[in-house]
Amino acid sequence: MRDRPPRNQPKGFPRPSAGKAERSGPRTTRPRFAGRRDGRSGSGGPDDGPVVLYGWHTVVEALSNPRRRIRQLWLTENAARRLAEADIALPAAHELVRPDAIDRRLGPDAVHQGLLAEAEPLAAPEVEELREGVVLALDQVTDPHNVGAVLRSAAAFAVTAIVTTARHSPEATGVLAKSASGALEHVPIVTVRNLAQGLEALRANGFRLVGLDSAGDGDLAAANLQHPLVLVLGAEGKGLRQLTRATCDAVARLDLPGAIKSLNVSNAAALALYIATTRGRS
Amino acid sequence: MRDRPPRNQPKGFPRPSAGKAERSGPRTTRPRFAGRRDGRSGSGGPDDGPVVLYGWHTVVEALSNPRRRIRQLWLTENAARRLAEADIALPAAHELVRPDAIDRRLGPDAVHQGLLAEAEPLAAPEVEELREGVVLALDQVTDPHNVGAVLRSAAAFAVTAIVTTARHSPEATGVLAKSASGALEHVPIVTVRNLAQGLEALRANGFRLVGLDSAGDGDLAAANLQHPLVLVLGAEGKGLRQLTRATCDAVARLDLPGAIKSLNVSNAAALALYIATTRGRS
Repeated sequence: MRDRPPRNQPKGFPRPSAGKAERSGPRTTRPRFAGRRDGRSGSGGPDDGPVVLYGWHTVVEALSNPRRRIRQLWLTENAARRLAEADIALPAAHELVRPDAIDRRLGPDAVHQGLLAEAEPLAAPEVEELREGVVLALDQVTDPHNVGAVLRSAAAFAVTAIVTTARHSPEATGVLAKSASGALEHVPIVTVRNLAQGLEALRANGFRLVGLDSAGDGDLAAANLQHPLVLVLGAEGKGLRQLTRATCDAVARLDLPGAIKSLNVSNAAALALYIATTRGRS
Repeated sequence: MRDRPPRNQPKGFPRPSAGKAERSGPRTTRPRFAGRRDGRSGSGGPDDGPVVLYGWHTVVEALSNPRRRIRQLWLTENAARRLAEADIALPAAHELVRPDAIDRRLGPDAVHQGLLAEAEPLAAPEVEELREGVVLALDQVTDPHNVGAVLRSAAAFAVTAIVTTARHSPEATGVLAKSASGALEHVPIVTVRNLAQGLEALRANGFRLVGLDSAGDGDLAAANLQHPLVLVLGAEGKGLRQLTRATCDAVARLDLPGAIKSLNVSNAAALALYIATTRGRS
């Protein structure tokens, strides 16, 4: 209602007018999920552009998170009604739009449920600041659907943080956040330049490092899963890189009784987290 | 190489020429995942058209399954080389094509890895024929990515069958099969017209019926999970329908320690199967 698109905008394409929110750099229509440009470890996940958030759970969790700064919210009348019914306050910078305006922004396959926000990335700790609980480390897991699904399970199991390498992280923050279904507000994503170095920093803080790989030495359920614990997951098919394996204190597998011997990475993560949180506490 | 597309085909659009394979009915370009037209329970999953299979794992598992009848395989030279290296025999009806021909058939987002097959659906047992092990019943879980992911975990845990209602099953068999990553060859999909009646048939065969719902009476890990066992899963957000809940012997929940209290359905299925197979045997 308050923000009118500038004249050079495609018709119906939602975008905040300049000056409505502070901008830290050039606008990117498709924000990238990448590490800091200075190459230092530690970041709030996507941090060289705004974070695009869409879908009911994703946006509602963001609006309910006092740490999340929303630059601009676009919403349909239906979504506005649902938010009012749920007693969720709108940010100052919001604009009612028709659903097809959001369709055009996100593409036809995005299930946005009438909600699209651009937000600042959340601050995240440095890897050296992590000291307790269970941390998930992702070794070249890049598919945004997979990372988002892992993030969701991580939030369900109260994981301290997800550690991932910047270079191989997904560009599609929006897809990641949607798959995470609100979990992006709850689990910090700590990007490191070098996973092995990140793991060593965690080891120095007392973490035990347990990798998960189909060629692991024994069943995860029988492994020493003493906390604080890092569970290291590799990409499907590729598994853990050699250096990652060598950095772990132990590499275990998930023994599966059936004909298919591998789970998709988010299912493997959920199972590993269940085992680690129910059997691992010391 | 043997099958040339008929003259009225769009250029580069792979399709077997008529007569190369027996056809049970009119060709559907987008086969539907649906129950038998006569409304009886029990089916091989998609059974009113050919099953579309694409992607490396999906097609390789199908080629390796002696019960799976391939009507036609289209493959790229690269895929042919990989199959030869893996010593996997090609079906008689196959044709080398360029990758973009498969792209055009499946759309730009399908990761087909140079392999596309049309196949007969597999025969599946009637629900009354199921007698042992763990069965997964899906209550209005319809998203093909979700059903495929559930199927994959089901195969990993050696589930006897998946029982689902025909009306709400996904049309997108290809997407389902791809998400299942070969698991479609290992776990029968039994479609029933009425889930409650299907569950009663399983109860009559000695199965214990345990539903999974966030409003369940206690943690699944503490529930009686005696085999033979049916685990009943509902759709995300909606949970189990009232009649489904009422039909179950018990309804349990997955207690989660974190801020997000629900898992996506395939992760919930993987966790429930792990709990049921490691703690449930009597």
